[in-house]
Amino acid sequence: MQKSSQRGTPVGRRKFLATSLGTAVAIGLPAWCGAQSGSRSAGPADPALLEDLVAANRILVRYGVLDGMGHVSVRHNASRERFLISRSLAPELVTAADILEYDLNGDAIDLRGRAQYSERYIHAAIYRARPDVNAVVHNHSPAVIPFTVSDVPLRPIYHMASFMLEGLPVFDIRDESGITNMLVNSPERAEGLVTALGDSAAVLMRGHGIAVTGPSIPFAVGRSIYTQINADLQQRAISLGGNVEYLDPREGQAMLDAGENRGYSRSWELWKRDALRGMR
Amino acid sequence: MQKSSQRGTPVGRRKFLATSLGTAVAIGLPAWCGAQSGSRSAGPADPALLEDLVAANRILVRYGVLDGMGHVSVRHNASRERFLISRSLAPELVTAADILEYDLNGDAIDLRGRAQYSERYIHAAIYRARPDVNAVVHNHSPAVIPFTVSDVPLRPIYHMASFMLEGLPVFDIRDESGITNMLVNSPERAEGLVTALGDSAAVLMRGHGIAVTGPSIPFAVGRSIYTQINADLQQRAISLGGNVEYLDPREGQAMLDAGENRGYSRSWELWKRDALRGMR
Amino acid sequence: MQKSSQRGTPVGRRKFLATSLGTAVAIGLPAWCGAQSGSRSAGPADPALLEDLVAANRILVRYGVLDGMGHVSVRHNASRERFLISRSLAPELVTAADILEYDLNGDAIDLRGRAQYSERYIHAAIYRARPDVNAVVHNHSPAVIPFTVSDVPLRPIYHMASFMLEGLPVFDIRDESGITNMLVNSPERAEGLVTALGDSAAVLMRGHGIAVTGPSIPFAVGRSIYTQINADLQQRAISLGGNVEYLDPREGQAMLDAGENRGYSRSWELWKRDALRGMR
Amino acid sequence: MQKSSQRGTPVGRRKFLATSLGTAVAIGLPAWCGAQSGSRSAGPADPALLEDLVAANRILVRYGVLDGMGHVSVRHNASRERFLISRSLAPELVTAADILEYDLNGDAIDLRGRAQYSERYIHAAIYRARPDVNAVVHNHSPAVIPFTVSDVPLRPIYHMASFMLEGLPVFDIRDESGITNMLVNSPERAEGLVTALGDSAAVLMRGHGIAVTGPSIPFAVGRSIYTQINADLQQRAISLGGNVEYLDPREGQAMLDAGENRGYSRSWELWKRDALRGMR
Repeated sequence: MQKSSQRGTPVGRRKFLATSLGTAVAIGLPAWCGAQSGSRSAGPADPALLEDLVAANRILVRYGVLDGMGHVSVRHNASRERFLISRSLAPELVTAADILEYDLNGDAIDLRGRAQYSERYIHAAIYRARPDVNAVVHNHSPAVIPFTVSDVPLRPIYHMASFMLEGLPVFDIRDESGITNMLVNSPERAEGLVTALGDSAAVLMRGHGIAVTGPSIPFAVGRSIYTQINADLQQRAISLGGNVEYLDPREGQAMLDAGENRGYSRSWELWKRDALRGMR
Repeated sequence: MQKSSQRGTPVGRRKFLATSLGTAVAIGLPAWCGAQSGSRSAGPADPALLEDLVAANRILVRYGVLDGMGHVSVRHNASRERFLISRSLAPELVTAADILEYDLNGDAIDLRGRAQYSERYIHAAIYRARPDVNAVVHNHSPAVIPFTVSDVPLRPIYHMASFMLEGLPVFDIRDESGITNMLVNSPERAEGLVTALGDSAAVLMRGHGIAVTGPSIPFAVGRSIYTQINADLQQRAISLGGNVEYLDPREGQAMLDAGENRGYSRSWELWKRDALRGMR
Repeated sequence: MQKSSQRGTPVGRRKFLATSLGTAVAIGLPAWCGAQSGSRSAGPADPALLEDLVAANRILVRYGVLDGMGHVSVRHNASRERFLISRSLAPELVTAADILEYDLNGDAIDLRGRAQYSERYIHAAIYRARPDVNAVVHNHSPAVIPFTVSDVPLRPIYHMASFMLEGLPVFDIRDESGITNMLVNSPERAEGLVTALGDSAAVLMRGHGIAVTGPSIPFAVGRSIYTQINADLQQRAISLGGNVEYLDPREGQAMLDAGENRGYSRSWELWKRDALRGMR
Repeated sequence: MQKSSQRGTPVGRRKFLATSLGTAVAIGLPAWCGAQSGSRSAGPADPALLEDLVAANRILVRYGVLDGMGHVSVRHNASRERFLISRSLAPELVTAADILEYDLNGDAIDLRGRAQYSERYIHAAIYRARPDVNAVVHNHSPAVIPFTVSDVPLRPIYHMASFMLEGLPVFDIRDESGITNMLVNSPERAEGLVTALGDSAAVLMRGHGIAVTGPSIPFAVGRSIYTQINADLQQRAISLGGNVEYLDPREGQAMLDAGENRGYSRSWELWKRDALRGMR
């Protein structure tokens, strides 16, 4: 096991944490420390991809989708069997130096004693099951949470949420795992989530949050933001007391066929500029 | 076809986009590229008008009426047969160098290979049908969207929304065009919207947004902002559970007759100062 | 009539406005220009009072109570027959140089061609009728507006809104003036508002806003802010669907007897610091 | 009685206040001035603990849990019979120089003429009754207030609010003290609150606010923030109109057993960095 290198850690606490984690690993791993993968690295990731991944973390904080919790990952550009995600860290603090490489079992290629997200299995399982997915966001988006505990389904009320089509499925961890601490912190728990996800763009997690997918980072980010907005607007529409006319799934599909907001490119340019401002 | 000039584009991605668009135009146009108008330019626009148009984009972002999507236009000062609107760009990024001139068919006078808003036809059709209108905003104002999908009508609850009079009409793109991708991206679709608009100050668009008009930029901006606020307040008033007393249309008319908030001049001075701060 | 002096006006538009107003006054006054008072000035106001008045404008913008509209006044320190209020200007732009002196008829002592708030009569009439009042805020606080049009009364749900006691009265301009443009822009209209106000700390204005009073600027500012917060919280409490337990008026009175949040002094220190930061 | 020392007081008003307080103490104490403890100091507090306490004040303002009112305390590192809390001051203005030491009767060890929080008895009584508690927050969190006056109970709807278990109890000051000014400004009133609190992590205060506890500052801060978020989300979930599935208390307990968000350490690092930015 390697000693933690101290890159860009302004807070002395981190040094302590990394060091004590080293000890912890030696004497028995807590779940959030995890095992090292036996696999080899796919090599260095494309710096532009890393920049987008860092930007995604910060964009989602700016839009209130992430707070101190949640995470974003992307499939490795050099191997479909690897993905990239930060070590355990509040998303707003993530820099390129914090990104780790994982295999699709959720094991780190080279952990170097760093703390990991205990729920990285959400990402691993989705990449394994869904070849069309290249980016995943797990978040506790406030506007979305109410729909994870209500029997009123989340459905698209406007074209910016067309990717929801008929609506999003809900994963209840109790269905397969019974009473838990609610965390998807094992490959087994992640399997249940992936089953619930099916072919959808995202899956709600009862009493917890959501996992959002996309063919690229801008899609996963854009869908996370517009899922949150749609949830808020749907709640407002319902509270008007009248009938609510949802988007026809064929309208949603037509929007997807037309490129779904052109891959969010117009917004992505803006989001990224704002998120990285002040970093460089 | 002219090559794209690279004015004020900090992101390398833009150069790639403009270049690839040039190729795209040569081999067959996607809808959002569009044709060149055969018409001649009305000449350079008044720099003060351009400044107001740039400010309008940024003001509406500041107030949450626009995000990465939506657009603002103004009739050309030198010809009632022309209007000015940005090339396809997130509103917050728009500068005077991004403004293009269009004829009232929605065709650009001199596109120079730039990407365009696919929904510019909303603007073109309104200027054609409504001589009293000199500025148009199309937006996805969050508070307004719920009223586009509810059978509870949007109505003015206070004097700042007097321009709504009896309330705003709703355009449902299905009524004339059936199942679509929801975008008003052709002259035909825009005709249906203009018919729904009639003589109103604005028209809601089912599952999409709103188009707001005014005799000048400050009016269209002010009405966009206060439509959003009124929508939010109406939703709150309804959720109190009691009876809601709407503005009497004659009170609204009296407010219009008295100059409708003096043409929003008191707010405009403030809005513009804040929006342009940091640009110069 | 004096020509407008140009103090601290960064926008050229103001010069034009002031000049054209001078002409306007000469050839016939619009309502918002108003007459000069025949009375003499009470002399220069205490600079500390002017600073508090400027701060009050900016504090209320910071807390969303004021936007581009609304105004704040204070009784003159040298005469109970005079009050101080800005010329017609968005509150966020107000500086000490913009403050004008008025008599209790709502006539300016020395207008110098400046545009005035057409609703200054709200302030004049309250100072005339209520010797206990030394500061007045008129605003369109978003959370409050719904209660001006609902038959569900605004009532205090927590101790920070104790000044509401049994709740706030509502003034409907139609009751005495019939169909109007909703503005309290004459002494006659203001009389109706003052009658509705009675002995209360504030009066709601149907489809318009609220007028809030206090024995000093910090009281009027604090009450404006907490009226807004209470309105928001009451709406949330009601939307929970259960029974709502309002503050007992005797509890409210006990809070008033105990000094009502110590005259808001703890918050005032903070609010003023933040509001004036960057001005000096 | 010592004279007030003037540390870091940018506003002249403070000098006046402190001086007049000195006089007030000499001629008879208002409740918020209070008595000096006869006890001896436990000695200087750990500077790291003071820094965390200052940070906690500012974090809670950033997240809207505190405004100009409310307070945070921590048990003294050198004695379980002492706690540390600011003198009477808006939380955002608190620095290490403002922190005072108290005994568990709520009496200051060395007041030096400073004004105190009249509700410090909340903190004193909780530290006395609950050895497991080392940090307390009293706040008027807007989203929480509605649940203090509604018969709809506050309950956890997601895992971030697991510490609520079956839900939070409500303290009604009328039950033991009858009609009051609502303030918990005496040891007697605080006893009623502590009885209502029982073994819970927090107790709602009818028409007033909440008192939140934790085994350390990050716990009390994190629980305050997530109580606020959960309250907002529960209100949204209820307003959807369907059935709401609350967290199973056994799920909440499992989350607590697993370390309750790892002691909020991931967020704490972020929160503290942001809160202290610009101070140093």
